[in-house]
Amino acid sequence: MARRQDVTRALAEWVVDSKFDDIPDNVRAQGVRSFVNWLGCAVGGASHETADRAIEGVAPFSGSQKVTVVGRAERLDALHAALLNGITSHVLDYDDTHLKTIIHPAGPVASAALTVAELKGLSGRDVLHALLLGIEVECRIGNSVYPDHYDRGWHITGTTGVFGAAAAVGKLLGLDAQRMTWALSLAATQSSNLREMFGTMTKSFHPGRAAQNGATAAFLAQAGFDSAEAGIEGRRGFAHVLSTKQDYGEILDTLGTEWEAGLNSYKPFACGIVIHPAIDGCIQLHKEHAIPAAEVESIELKAHPFVLELTGKTDPKTGLESKFSIFHATACALERGDGSPTAFTDEAATNPVLVDLRRRVKVETSPSVREDEVTITVRTKDGRTIEKYIEHAIGSLHRPLSNADLDRKFLHQSALVIGEAQSAELLDMAWKVEDFRHAADIAKASVPARQKAEAV
Amino acid sequence: MARRQDVTRALAEWVVDSKFDDIPDNVRAQGVRSFVNWLGCAVGGASHETADRAIEGVAPFSGSQKVTVVGRAERLDALHAALLNGITSHVLDYDDTHLKTIIHPAGPVASAALTVAELKGLSGRDVLHALLLGIEVECRIGNSVYPDHYDRGWHITGTTGVFGAAAAVGKLLGLDAQRMTWALSLAATQSSNLREMFGTMTKSFHPGRAAQNGATAAFLAQAGFDSAEAGIEGRRGFAHVLSTKQDYGEILDTLGTEWEAGLNSYKPFACGIVIHPAIDGCIQLHKEHAIPAAEVESIELKAHPFVLELTGKTDPKTGLESKFSIFHATACALERGDGSPTAFTDEAATNPVLVDLRRRVKVETSPSVREDEVTITVRTKDGRTIEKYIEHAIGSLHRPLSNADLDRKFLHQSALVIGEAQSAELLDMAWKVEDFRHAADIAKASVPARQKAEAV
Repeated sequence: MARRQDVTRALAEWVVDSKFDDIPDNVRAQGVRSFVNWLGCAVGGASHETADRAIEGVAPFSGSQKVTVVGRAERLDALHAALLNGITSHVLDYDDTHLKTIIHPAGPVASAALTVAELKGLSGRDVLHALLLGIEVECRIGNSVYPDHYDRGWHITGTTGVFGAAAAVGKLLGLDAQRMTWALSLAATQSSNLREMFGTMTKSFHPGRAAQNGATAAFLAQAGFDSAEAGIEGRRGFAHVLSTKQDYGEILDTLGTEWEAGLNSYKPFACGIVIHPAIDGCIQLHKEHAIPAAEVESIELKAHPFVLELTGKTDPKTGLESKFSIFHATACALERGDGSPTAFTDEAATNPVLVDLRRRVKVETSPSVREDEVTITVRTKDGRTIEKYIEHAIGSLHRPLSNADLDRKFLHQSALVIGEAQSAELLDMAWKVEDFRHAADIAKASVPARQKAEAV
Repeated sequence: MARRQDVTRALAEWVVDSKFDDIPDNVRAQGVRSFVNWLGCAVGGASHETADRAIEGVAPFSGSQKVTVVGRAERLDALHAALLNGITSHVLDYDDTHLKTIIHPAGPVASAALTVAELKGLSGRDVLHALLLGIEVECRIGNSVYPDHYDRGWHITGTTGVFGAAAAVGKLLGLDAQRMTWALSLAATQSSNLREMFGTMTKSFHPGRAAQNGATAAFLAQAGFDSAEAGIEGRRGFAHVLSTKQDYGEILDTLGTEWEAGLNSYKPFACGIVIHPAIDGCIQLHKEHAIPAAEVESIELKAHPFVLELTGKTDPKTGLESKFSIFHATACALERGDGSPTAFTDEAATNPVLVDLRRRVKVETSPSVREDEVTITVRTKDGRTIEKYIEHAIGSLHRPLSNADLDRKFLHQSALVIGEAQSAELLDMAWKVEDFRHAADIAKASVPARQKAEAV
């Protein structure tokens, strides 16, 4: 074992030495949930214009050993397919959240692991193992620098996801400890992505590029392309340059005995997670009171400061922008009872009734309110006051989505892209990921059946 | 024109509106010098093991529309060829330096511009125009955040080079102002690269990846993949997240009237520029006194603090590491009179005479010594003391390399890879870059003649 302070090397050795059979059943089960949720999101986002634009931009550069892009007819080389999978799994902002760090963990890791598994003919167990290790690496590195790193303006899903993808692909390639160390340092030197991009197509580019860059790091390291020994903890390495906080105990303590995958949560609503308490409450108000928009005098929220920091857009013009508007999300949830992808389309963002209603949303923030908590007060024009208190939003660790909830979420978004029957079949395969000798079979089953025949 | 504070937009508009004929002759001449120097370095580094390893890692993912990799027989898609050109042009640490920021400007920009020009059938003038604009963008962005950004640990060639490559390729693709703005923001969100990697293959990965990522940004923007409006100056954009200093006047003032290309310098020695004064002085001492290593008691340097900060490796094991060792470089220059690529090979780094001599090098640093200044005191075992004072190192703006010096530098390193005759022909073409209807002709002339017949 490396010396305690050799963080990059120690983490690399742990990944290299990990055996799938040593991972506890409950951790594996969490990994399967992450995989199922990721696959549903990647299919659900696959028909988004963002994916069309990305494919138009990069397909001319795709290599000839092509693999599946989840939910699409086009086939790309494994690195570009990883980019696309990462984009589609995140574009609806409907994926998963490691609540300690606001990392969306599966996207950068699974997006690369599945394409490399297809390229190399590897199994569903291999993918699940790589996914669990990648999530562990990215979330622990996130823990070591959060919150300073995030507060500075980094989109932590991209900055840490590249490590997760490197570890996952490195494991699939069977790198030794030296090469895995190089892969992690090659990931460190590619760690980037800015929160300024929120509300544009470039936000979902982040987990996609993290997947692609992390995989590239692993392939380069495999070829003997060398790198630093201490890309994470070195004086000019990731943690010192991209953060004012460096807590390496968060990376190395309890490694292999406590698993971050168990702390992953799955979004019930297709937008920034800090809005979820408000949507949860407004959907309940919609069901219980069905107050027409015209009768609403005001909607007042008392929420955590992150709500305005991250989702304070007052006048979103597009579906992607509306995911970062507490005003839109609140109005749409109260008026339509909807927080799913259909609540964040260009139509919804520009709907006159919703645009008018969102102007009546007032947000007061306080650090004394927890992130998964909100108080909503609706005042009607005829003088009524209706209050709703959400202690823990649905989807939080206190109220996690059940496997049946994940099924419903998967089928609802996937059906819009590949139809109900194919979605049901794909969902069944996703839960059984461990049984597949060729993980590629799952990826291939996500291709829209109508388009499959036409595909190259 | 955009409002003064819209930095990204204003810079994008300037690039889009620029006309080649409006650029002063002396600026164009500097651009040609940068191009010649870059091409010589890319050929000179093309046979380095770093390039072999990179090609082995990424070639399986190369697309089918292949273009030339400078100095190599293999052909890759334009994005991967840009990566390789960036690697080879920097791997010997022999390229160019924008002394205000320590950016090596041509690598990220020319490496992408030439491959995209070949892909699109563009001219030498197009490449030269794109190169000048790219250098301008990257160096001005560098000026806006230097030195804070560099001091923090960022390898500024990579962090700013990605903007330069995006601007250059965006210009070659004829992007409009909106798409150029997106391209610059897509560059901003990919801005990365850590100084921790110095001394490994990953250092030269930085300008390569900046070239590749900047080009990708431009191709995505061309396809309508949207991004932030203010990737540079936004609250969560490049300048605020990656620097504590933001001086946007450095970006927008005198744009189009003063050119950073005029401030580019060309390395006379194949290593970190802060060592150059010491090498310059020691080569002079070698010529003047020829003191055998065995007779040297000590070599004392009085130098700028960057010398130990950046090149303080006391016991380099490889050629790449030795480029960051003031101790090795000083010993080699005194003993062999050499600061060229042959001074920084694995052989030189482990040569017993040099290893022994470098232990007798003592470095005292002081902020009162300028970066291009050094005082060298050699004490011999028989009691002599020989002093050499270098006021401005050769290659600095006070003592720039002449065109004849650039010729010699080009031919010396290029001949080692493609032979003297082909090097002379290529050098002639490089000086005439403006005359080429197809810039690809220059790239193709760099392929080793012996291997060209074997190439796919």
